[in-house]
Amino acid sequence: MCTLGELLSHRTPRTGGTSWRSSCRTSTGKGMEKPFSEVIKANIGDAHAMGQRPITFLRQVLALCACPELLERDGFPEDAKQRAQRILQNCGGVSIGSYSASQGIACVREDVARFLERRDGIAANADDIYLCTGASEGVVTLLKLLVSNGGRVRSGVLIPIPQYPLYSAALSELGAEQLGYELDEGRGWALDVRELRRVLGRARRSCEPRALCVINPGNPTGQVQDRHSIEEVIEFAAEEGLFIIADEVYQDNVYAPGCQFHSFKKVLHDMGPEYEQTVQLASLHSTSKGFLGECGQRGGYMEVLNLPAGVKAELVKLVSVRLCPPVLGQATVDVLANPPELGEPSHSLYVQERDSVLRSLARKALLTAQLLNGTEGIACNPVQGAMYAFPRVHIPPRAVAEAQARGLLPDMFYCLQLLEETGICVVPGSGFGQKDGTHHFRMTILPPEEKLKILLTKVTEFHARFTELYA
Amino acid sequence: MCTLGELLSHRTPRTGGTSWRSSCRTSTGKGMEKPFSEVIKANIGDAHAMGQRPITFLRQVLALCACPELLERDGFPEDAKQRAQRILQNCGGVSIGSYSASQGIACVREDVARFLERRDGIAANADDIYLCTGASEGVVTLLKLLVSNGGRVRSGVLIPIPQYPLYSAALSELGAEQLGYELDEGRGWALDVRELRRVLGRARRSCEPRALCVINPGNPTGQVQDRHSIEEVIEFAAEEGLFIIADEVYQDNVYAPGCQFHSFKKVLHDMGPEYEQTVQLASLHSTSKGFLGECGQRGGYMEVLNLPAGVKAELVKLVSVRLCPPVLGQATVDVLANPPELGEPSHSLYVQERDSVLRSLARKALLTAQLLNGTEGIACNPVQGAMYAFPRVHIPPRAVAEAQARGLLPDMFYCLQLLEETGICVVPGSGFGQKDGTHHFRMTILPPEEKLKILLTKVTEFHARFTELYA
Repeated sequence: MCTLGELLSHRTPRTGGTSWRSSCRTSTGKGMEKPFSEVIKANIGDAHAMGQRPITFLRQVLALCACPELLERDGFPEDAKQRAQRILQNCGGVSIGSYSASQGIACVREDVARFLERRDGIAANADDIYLCTGASEGVVTLLKLLVSNGGRVRSGVLIPIPQYPLYSAALSELGAEQLGYELDEGRGWALDVRELRRVLGRARRSCEPRALCVINPGNPTGQVQDRHSIEEVIEFAAEEGLFIIADEVYQDNVYAPGCQFHSFKKVLHDMGPEYEQTVQLASLHSTSKGFLGECGQRGGYMEVLNLPAGVKAELVKLVSVRLCPPVLGQATVDVLANPPELGEPSHSLYVQERDSVLRSLARKALLTAQLLNGTEGIACNPVQGAMYAFPRVHIPPRAVAEAQARGLLPDMFYCLQLLEETGICVVPGSGFGQKDGTHHFRMTILPPEEKLKILLTKVTEFHARFTELYA
Repeated sequence: MCTLGELLSHRTPRTGGTSWRSSCRTSTGKGMEKPFSEVIKANIGDAHAMGQRPITFLRQVLALCACPELLERDGFPEDAKQRAQRILQNCGGVSIGSYSASQGIACVREDVARFLERRDGIAANADDIYLCTGASEGVVTLLKLLVSNGGRVRSGVLIPIPQYPLYSAALSELGAEQLGYELDEGRGWALDVRELRRVLGRARRSCEPRALCVINPGNPTGQVQDRHSIEEVIEFAAEEGLFIIADEVYQDNVYAPGCQFHSFKKVLHDMGPEYEQTVQLASLHSTSKGFLGECGQRGGYMEVLNLPAGVKAELVKLVSVRLCPPVLGQATVDVLANPPELGEPSHSLYVQERDSVLRSLARKALLTAQLLNGTEGIACNPVQGAMYAFPRVHIPPRAVAEAQARGLLPDMFYCLQLLEETGICVVPGSGFGQKDGTHHFRMTILPPEEKLKILLTKVTEFHARFTELYA
């Protein structure tokens, strides 16, 4: 039997003790015969695994950093060589094999600060930037810092429901309270500040709320938060003295016309100095998402603002225990933050590759919601951003009973049946949290367009069969 | 003022608010004039930062993995190309940009298992191997797993004194008890099982001891544990039901004639099935030390044996929260585990580069102990292995009083004075723990031989001046 952990990971899902990989690839093998020829993994946001090609300039820089003798050879553009040389000059012994500063290589943090200045039109300080081993590590470090508690009262952290389960896993490991606030599915997964107030009011009786996490664009929900909503959240956090963790790793993944990414930092700035100088804010970004899709490099950074000096010293101590993030991951962050400029040899190819990825994602976002919504019993909010659809599915009462009889949650049963019958791997909504009595699944929009069409058709056909079977 | 944290990290030490980098490089700058022209950093085990050159084959494999178009070009040996292709074939989408399995890339874990089989002559199973983001992450994960505690009694872990401070930092963060057992400086930092018994007996009154950490070869102490001592430790752990964490990251760094690295796994095996099949053991290794010195790649692995199925499931859950270790770090582990073989094009250069690093380290280990021991008031055990000397220094009572007056520990005062007067950066023994009333410092043996000689001469001259001043 396949577990939720398996569906949420890159492990190949198994069923009945037999590896899917072996059982579905050949219908004549020892495994049970499966009614499909291939598993399509739409369960995790792993773009390269789904066939996305790496950005040429980035990989050239990595190769040159790894093997500096290539700097002497032909076949690499000058700007890639210069970039590699700049990174190497910032490494101890001019080698990516030395430890960097725990907070990250100085020139990379400088480049991130300049990137943020271009993005927001506001001054940024390299000293506020912390490079991490993927944004996940940044999130875990921040939570560790914020919930550590000498006293008897447990700390609490507000997290969206549905949420990316890194937050619930980290909080549970840290022994802190998960204060789930529900996003409003009826309003395109909007964040309602009244819901924040409701949850906080109740939470104050049992714990000490410290922080508020917002994922924008949303994972697994794909909404893009509007400016007004961000203002409301900041005002709320300011009133209640909460630290804001803005998970903005999908900031480059905005597709829907009329939607725009607004950074918490920019909105905070625009609200005036009484906010800008007081509200504690961390914003996270990653090389794993966007158009790079470089999950394997484990590159990411966070910008942390308005941290009191003592807390900042604690943060520096925390990050120094892990010595440093992987240096080539840091080089990947550098390319994210400082892409080739107009007039440089790699610029046009870079733009072409970037736009090709983003345009394809935009088409797939539209297609996914359209095809899912064309099916009775499936309702999907528009995929405005990020890389996922989180459709709501109607599961008939008889199917719910059947799931219970098998000891499964209804949406887990649904997803396992989908996997068994079609080879399509998605994650049940219960893995992210969902309003009681509703059922969802999360699927990525990452498979190549042709494959995505097949996948969606199969899902809708499966849903019709499933609904009829348990009608 | 420079802090212990700074001395233990790759941050450039500061003094009096002025960066050393700027104040000592030019004696005409704004900083105070310093009586030296260069800071020599002997504070951390960062080989490349000290000028060690990377292993050519490894870097070729990394470059080829990053930039597979190089596979089509000349200028790379066939075995490097084949290795890169093999790793790429094991990556989702044939790209190092995809997530690997949380436990690590299958073929790398296979190569580690074969490496362990060659090393120990005992079967090894890729399923027991967990790749990590440097061995440090492995240690933290293991400790998290072992000390997690639903109950009211605190968990305790036996750690050597002196110890590498990752252990104390991690245990303190996890809220577990540090049960320090003292290594016997008078017997070359030997581990005495009676000391383990003494510490454990006392500890059982206040906490629940779960695990025993051994660092072999020793950090900061440089001793190589003999076979008999390992047998005693295993017997003790078996009797007391303790999990053994064998930090064996310096297994390739053994220099002293007559010394040999014995893996805990091999000794466990040789003690017979009643031990081999029951004692829980994790052994860690890293790409940061040895002769690769690739700290920046954050590569490492652990082999975990005899873990009950339920605990193993917990471990798998823990490692999956961080998604996966950096993929190029995993490729680095692959080269560590599976170097070019005799007859392959890269073999002879690899052997030559490896031996050159190890021979130089052996000369420097000998030189360091010799020169330190030639100084009155400094006593240094032989540097049998690892990368450090941990000499004991006599600090005169008047210097101890002066340190107290300045609010410093005596060895911290000593190290800061050394830094002020000579530009040599070492770490006070108090950062690692030491027997009450004794004082030490840790220095690496990594600077190039000529520079190491200068460093050691300056240290001995400083010691003489310091002793005379406070006589």
